[in-house]
Amino acid sequence: MPTVKMVEYDDASPEVRAIYDEIKSVRKMTEVSTFYKVLATNPAGLSRYWESLKVAMAPGRLDLLTKELIAIAVGIVEGCDYCVDSHVAIARRLGMDDEILGELVSVISVFSEAARISTAYQLKLEENFDGLLSSTAGSS
Amino acid sequence: MPTVKMVEYDDASPEVRAIYDEIKSVRKMTEVSTFYKVLATNPAGLSRYWESLKVAMAPGRLDLLTKELIAIAVGIVEGCDYCVDSHVAIARRLGMDDEILGELVSVISVFSEAARISTAYQLKLEENFDGLLSSTAGSS
Amino acid sequence: MPTVKMVEYDDASPEVRAIYDEIKSVRKMTEVSTFYKVLATNPAGLSRYWESLKVAMAPGRLDLLTKELIAIAVGIVEGCDYCVDSHVAIARRLGMDDEILGELVSVISVFSEAARISTAYQLKLEENFDGLLSSTAGSS
Amino acid sequence: MPTVKMVEYDDASPEVRAIYDEIKSVRKMTEVSTFYKVLATNPAGLSRYWESLKVAMAPGRLDLLTKELIAIAVGIVEGCDYCVDSHVAIARRLGMDDEILGELVSVISVFSEAARISTAYQLKLEENFDGLLSSTAGSS
Amino acid sequence: MPTVKMVEYDDASPEVRAIYDEIKSVRKMTEVSTFYKVLATNPAGLSRYWESLKVAMAPGRLDLLTKELIAIAVGIVEGCDYCVDSHVAIARRLGMDDEILGELVSVISVFSEAARISTAYQLKLEENFDGLLSSTAGSS
Amino acid sequence: MPTVKMVEYDDASPEVRAIYDEIKSVRKMTEVSTFYKVLATNPAGLSRYWESLKVAMAPGRLDLLTKELIAIAVGIVEGCDYCVDSHVAIARRLGMDDEILGELVSVISVFSEAARISTAYQLKLEENFDGLLSSTAGSS
Repeated sequence: MPTVKMVEYDDASPEVRAIYDEIKSVRKMTEVSTFYKVLATNPAGLSRYWESLKVAMAPGRLDLLTKELIAIAVGIVEGCDYCVDSHVAIARRLGMDDEILGELVSVISVFSEAARISTAYQLKLEENFDGLLSSTAGSS
Repeated sequence: MPTVKMVEYDDASPEVRAIYDEIKSVRKMTEVSTFYKVLATNPAGLSRYWESLKVAMAPGRLDLLTKELIAIAVGIVEGCDYCVDSHVAIARRLGMDDEILGELVSVISVFSEAARISTAYQLKLEENFDGLLSSTAGSS
Repeated sequence: MPTVKMVEYDDASPEVRAIYDEIKSVRKMTEVSTFYKVLATNPAGLSRYWESLKVAMAPGRLDLLTKELIAIAVGIVEGCDYCVDSHVAIARRLGMDDEILGELVSVISVFSEAARISTAYQLKLEENFDGLLSSTAGSS
Repeated sequence: MPTVKMVEYDDASPEVRAIYDEIKSVRKMTEVSTFYKVLATNPAGLSRYWESLKVAMAPGRLDLLTKELIAIAVGIVEGCDYCVDSHVAIARRLGMDDEILGELVSVISVFSEAARISTAYQLKLEENFDGLLSSTAGSS
Repeated sequence: MPTVKMVEYDDASPEVRAIYDEIKSVRKMTEVSTFYKVLATNPAGLSRYWESLKVAMAPGRLDLLTKELIAIAVGIVEGCDYCVDSHVAIARRLGMDDEILGELVSVISVFSEAARISTAYQLKLEENFDGLLSSTAGSS
Repeated sequence: MPTVKMVEYDDASPEVRAIYDEIKSVRKMTEVSTFYKVLATNPAGLSRYWESLKVAMAPGRLDLLTKELIAIAVGIVEGCDYCVDSHVAIARRLGMDDEILGELVSVISVFSEAARISTAYQLKLEENFDGLLSSTAGSS
């Protein structure tokens, strides 16, 4: 159960309603999710987060599916159930299927292992690491 | 300083050398990095990790640059210096520039925030979350 | 469901009962919570943890509400549901309302971002960092 | 070494310079720290983070020293060296001494333990947790 | 609810069935757990993980109970409910009782504290650390 | 550089010296390490931690080497350099060699993967998990 009482659209101040409306439009939702309704218990916090998310997810060099896959990756490593559940649902709308999810999980898992190994053996990057990459390293 | 003595190519057993050679070929390196030279202090561990990495990074549905960006994301959330340094170097070879890195950092940062917010307010995914996504949610 | 069978007051040894009584008195509870009843399956562990908590929460330079806010912050970053739920309930008794919780969540969220950014760009503190702070930095 | 080339004031665009100037004024610094100079390699990212931080640290219900102590707590649990180093320096300017830092470390440490214990025994908050708190629980 | 539809034995391909059969034999299970049934939605990922686990848990220098205790420790620090629940059940079959679990939780808790303290005070290992250990340090 | 000035033996109060002496005796050190010298800047914190550690590491059901291996595991998952370095040095005195360290790293790595996979697929333990374990599950 949420630790605060959610702010429903009908009970929201005009400022909060305006943010809710923008969220629905930009994030393509018919209604804002629980996530925003709890944040709205502190309107400054809702505004702060939304402005920041809007910039991060704006069209840029990375396409939207890639950004959602990164959101899933972050949610997995952070151990955040809500994050994983919600971004998996969104990514499926953008074309992610079980096979892509499986590849994503493999990549995340292996590099979480790499983090454990790096700490276990106390690695520091060799000064000439870039020199270890062959001239064709970027060719595929 | 590493917590073990690295296994250099010239001192390695034939089995370890064979793995080193495969790593250099598949990961396009002129010499294996410190990461593998410490793992080789336990040949079964080196083999186990390498076989797993090879599958995760094999050509599939996600392209190599996307996989390297996910590797950077995992390294950042795990707080792993070696991981970040090495995968940033590799991703630059594959075309990542400061602007893409900046976008990636923004996406990671915002969704690490989302994990904190979800825990703070003890969110559970609404049963009808998928229904909140509008019919055009997957259109871009 | 807990991974052990809780030790209820009536079934506890005299030593465990004495600790339960002290917890109720110091932490102002009418009955010890599940947290302590599972710890009591290993009396040495219960005693060890309680002695440590008692020192940490003893009256000192930081007031009790501040310590509970820090407990919430730690629970959030650790991703610990029980920690967040229980310390939010306690902090509300000490005067925390939704606005303070919202501010706390914003501060935690932003500095979790800062941790990601520091790792992403591999920052090391500049040697003259303290010199970058203006002479009025501590004035508010 | 940072993974990007820092943007120095003299080389910055007018937009970035304006943000640098505001940071120096609000955060009371004679020069912006490395943290902002690397973020500036992606001006949208710098602006996004700064706007968010400004809201989180604006005068409110929690005083500035409390917010800096929370920043230290987050930095410690995240394992972020730069975060800890920089916020300890700032908090000292605001009056934190070794004794307060020691108390803070004790509180953080004990509640990181509590997170481990909660997970180990798979605790879920009892439905009547609030009822376990005595009527004087908020009296100090 | 899992984010994918589990692959039951009767619906599995011959390749997946062969892996299921090997898991049941090596891990001594009458039926594979949910964990493997979700992984099987990406057969390459199932195979990759299973081959890696098989090597890690093969008879070696550490006995099986010790490896399961380490699995519990990792699950606790990672905050992974499924990991803790399942490995506690397996470890109990191998002889772990509440007292051993209690000791394990104490050791994990104290060293999670040590990690917080090390970060708080920004410790680096003294160069002569090994020299600080007395000549009898390894005698028990 | 530590964030506080260490308390050397010659400058310590009689109470702190008594703790230092006990640490040297119990942990078999010729001099206390940096870890304790920084904690001593807050004597109550030093005493609190030491009393807690002493209980956790007291002779019990788990032998000392196993406890040190768990300390290494916790240090690795927490990403704590000082913890890993110091406990690897201590464990080597107790008989750990590169092969045991390699096995330990494999076990930790694989179960960190398992935590990622559990979160990715949002697993909850099946109610009959224990029933999935065959009657010989505890026989080795």
